[in-house]
Amino acid sequence: MSDLRKTSVQDLLRSTDLDREVLVKGWVRTRRGNKYVQFIALNDGSGFNSIQVVANAEQFPEEKLRADGVENGAAIAVRGRLVASQGKGQAVEIQADEITVYGSADTTTYPLQKKGHTLEFLRGIAHLRPRTNTFGAILRIRHAMAFAVHQYFNDHGFYYVHTPIVTGSDAEGAGQMFRVTTLPDQNPPLTEDKSGVDYAQDFFGKQTNLTVSGQLEAEVAAMALGKVYTFGPTFRAENSNTARHLAEFWMIEPEVAFNDLQDNMDLAEDFLKSLVRYALEHCPDDLKFLNEQYDKELLTRLQFVVDNDFQRLTYTEAVEILKKAKQKFEFPVDWGTDLQSEHERYLVEKHFKKPVILTDYPKDIKAFYMKLNDDGKTVRAMDVLFPGIGEIIGGSQREEDLTKLKDRMAAMQVPEHELWWYLELRQYGTAPHAGFGLGFERLILFITGMANIRDVIPFPRFPGSAEF
Amino acid sequence: MSDLRKTSVQDLLRSTDLDREVLVKGWVRTRRGNKYVQFIALNDGSGFNSIQVVANAEQFPEEKLRADGVENGAAIAVRGRLVASQGKGQAVEIQADEITVYGSADTTTYPLQKKGHTLEFLRGIAHLRPRTNTFGAILRIRHAMAFAVHQYFNDHGFYYVHTPIVTGSDAEGAGQMFRVTTLPDQNPPLTEDKSGVDYAQDFFGKQTNLTVSGQLEAEVAAMALGKVYTFGPTFRAENSNTARHLAEFWMIEPEVAFNDLQDNMDLAEDFLKSLVRYALEHCPDDLKFLNEQYDKELLTRLQFVVDNDFQRLTYTEAVEILKKAKQKFEFPVDWGTDLQSEHERYLVEKHFKKPVILTDYPKDIKAFYMKLNDDGKTVRAMDVLFPGIGEIIGGSQREEDLTKLKDRMAAMQVPEHELWWYLELRQYGTAPHAGFGLGFERLILFITGMANIRDVIPFPRFPGSAEF
Repeated sequence: MSDLRKTSVQDLLRSTDLDREVLVKGWVRTRRGNKYVQFIALNDGSGFNSIQVVANAEQFPEEKLRADGVENGAAIAVRGRLVASQGKGQAVEIQADEITVYGSADTTTYPLQKKGHTLEFLRGIAHLRPRTNTFGAILRIRHAMAFAVHQYFNDHGFYYVHTPIVTGSDAEGAGQMFRVTTLPDQNPPLTEDKSGVDYAQDFFGKQTNLTVSGQLEAEVAAMALGKVYTFGPTFRAENSNTARHLAEFWMIEPEVAFNDLQDNMDLAEDFLKSLVRYALEHCPDDLKFLNEQYDKELLTRLQFVVDNDFQRLTYTEAVEILKKAKQKFEFPVDWGTDLQSEHERYLVEKHFKKPVILTDYPKDIKAFYMKLNDDGKTVRAMDVLFPGIGEIIGGSQREEDLTKLKDRMAAMQVPEHELWWYLELRQYGTAPHAGFGLGFERLILFITGMANIRDVIPFPRFPGSAEF
Repeated sequence: MSDLRKTSVQDLLRSTDLDREVLVKGWVRTRRGNKYVQFIALNDGSGFNSIQVVANAEQFPEEKLRADGVENGAAIAVRGRLVASQGKGQAVEIQADEITVYGSADTTTYPLQKKGHTLEFLRGIAHLRPRTNTFGAILRIRHAMAFAVHQYFNDHGFYYVHTPIVTGSDAEGAGQMFRVTTLPDQNPPLTEDKSGVDYAQDFFGKQTNLTVSGQLEAEVAAMALGKVYTFGPTFRAENSNTARHLAEFWMIEPEVAFNDLQDNMDLAEDFLKSLVRYALEHCPDDLKFLNEQYDKELLTRLQFVVDNDFQRLTYTEAVEILKKAKQKFEFPVDWGTDLQSEHERYLVEKHFKKPVILTDYPKDIKAFYMKLNDDGKTVRAMDVLFPGIGEIIGGSQREEDLTKLKDRMAAMQVPEHELWWYLELRQYGTAPHAGFGLGFERLILFITGMANIRDVIPFPRFPGSAEF
């Protein structure tokens, strides 16, 4: 091969500098043709579209290509001329001068055959599924959304804070936790009175778990840097084998000092619209494919979120609407209970026909740190509800009053001694502040139109599965 | 307060639109003055510099301010006029019309007194230390570096991949691991023959640990998307209580299909220079403070990295140089053993006086996945060595040959059945590829000039400590 540097497929497809020598490296998606010419669709993952390589049968007879392993899945390098395409469907193609095979893929055993595969089958080969059109598209969109998150916050003066994954506190009450330990798994050391395991001898000198949320630590940072966000993995040890739950997922949590609930809603709406707009602008090919293949309403629904102001109303108003609704619900609606997905989707898809933000939920169904309203019954919570997906964001203004916070902790049996540092934030220079959490995989479900959350993360973790 | 929207301190300090009404919210850094006028330095975390609030004593007598709690650490809002400053040291200041106190900080108990505090003392109050000049600067620089990482890769066509935190494989051999479990901590279920714990009954149906590296999974993604990177938390359960080790730290790992060791070195050098350049451009105030306060050579050393081409040589050549060195080393230098920090720093700081990349290490001191050289003795590894810090990046070209990889795994006792999926990457469409790991906290140590790694992460995790 010459000294030529390799070019990405996407750069070549966008190129207007034709009739030059190029070098491209990637994987064969398909090879077809006849006794005069062979066509190889070559993809290097840089984008949805493959580039067509035209191999003249005189130089590259089909038998030779087959013998060399130039088949579906093989990794090859192609040196040739970038020319205007003769055929339909692409503007440019490569006239091959030299083909080098790095690694073939045995056509009799390679799991990714030319036929379509079910998503369930592909879940079992998570190490190969990124090579398919579907998962290539999903993973590129996932990247674009992650970058858009960082760019939005950076542009708006927020600081990224890495909150800890291993935590000694289990006081947040957000769900069951995974224990982290280096003690022997059999016969661990016991406390002197033999009543339990002696975690003083564990690595961290106390019992530790995987975090369920970075919020409380993000509040620490917000009380110093003003506007901050987290974006990291969080964990739930709930035994829920559903299409909407993962044991390990990524969460985005902005937290802003001096923001109230109104500011918080404004931020959530602007943030979500900005992310959807970014996807529409930066991922047109991948979105078009998913729209055609999986969900014909996808692009319409994305545009719908960008174009509509989110409807804002209180939980109490929403309950009134749901009680008057002509629709039959599986679960009854009663003030004081949490809304179900069917209720949330009714509000968004049937009643308002736009994204909805519900506020001021009953205090008993919300976390201890949410700011109590003057009515003594509701808290300054907010949930953002999206079409097709229900709750996509949950947030609140935080209780900044030390006395009220302690009262709520006592009522909800959250031990003060575990959160002594959190309470000190209210003791020294306390201020109104607010924030929210966006489950990153929920966002990707919405943006891609996929139905199963295990299909929007590279290596899903759920009960019974920690493969790869 | 009026309908005026709050402005950040940094925006006000940069403002040229004077003599207008502004609203600013933040924390009092200092209050001083006399019987005619009081000066409040107000900081909201948006940047290093505080804005001076001038409070006329007629409207705001000192006794009143003190009684209201307008003291060091208090959270306040100030409405007033932005005017050209009368005094030295700032271009603009605020003439206060209205001061609202959200929360005071009892001067007798607030841990952050006006006097300086040791870094060790501040480590014990990690929930308050972000409010100091030092940690404000460090955390803003940490944000800037995280954003620069994402921007660099996005601009260069890389895709961000979230590799799993909980893993069922412990075959990477990078260090001791933390066990993740939901089994009872006492008397867990045993296997039928009572020989051990029955992990089939654990949450994931097998024994799981916290990841030590996302590399192997990043290779999966690179073999489909071409150019990828990870940026996430990684864990080591080593009992090392040093200023350079954390049990939980963030790591950046790019992986590129079709790259060889040369490409890998080019990428590492360009990437590191780009990050340092970004810090110099985007964090001048924070860096200036750290340069003055902690390390007078800091800015010089950063510029040094940007200005110099990294010296590249083999491990074998480096050993020759070290053997001939006039300097006395604590540890002897011998071909076949790993270099110590003193050796690395000699090469960088004394011999070459520039960053150094060492390549082609003896295979026995490097991981199983590194590509074997034709000499049968060395592997295509590379370490990037920096002044003051030693190794900042470790990487390699990966072994893409299935047979050679299996041989190395057998020799190093890495079980094939645990990495069946990794081996399949070499069975189907294998290709040359390379990547490296950059410990994010090592980078932040270098950029900030701090000496202890516990001071460059918001909530450090180390033996005996999982507070906050």
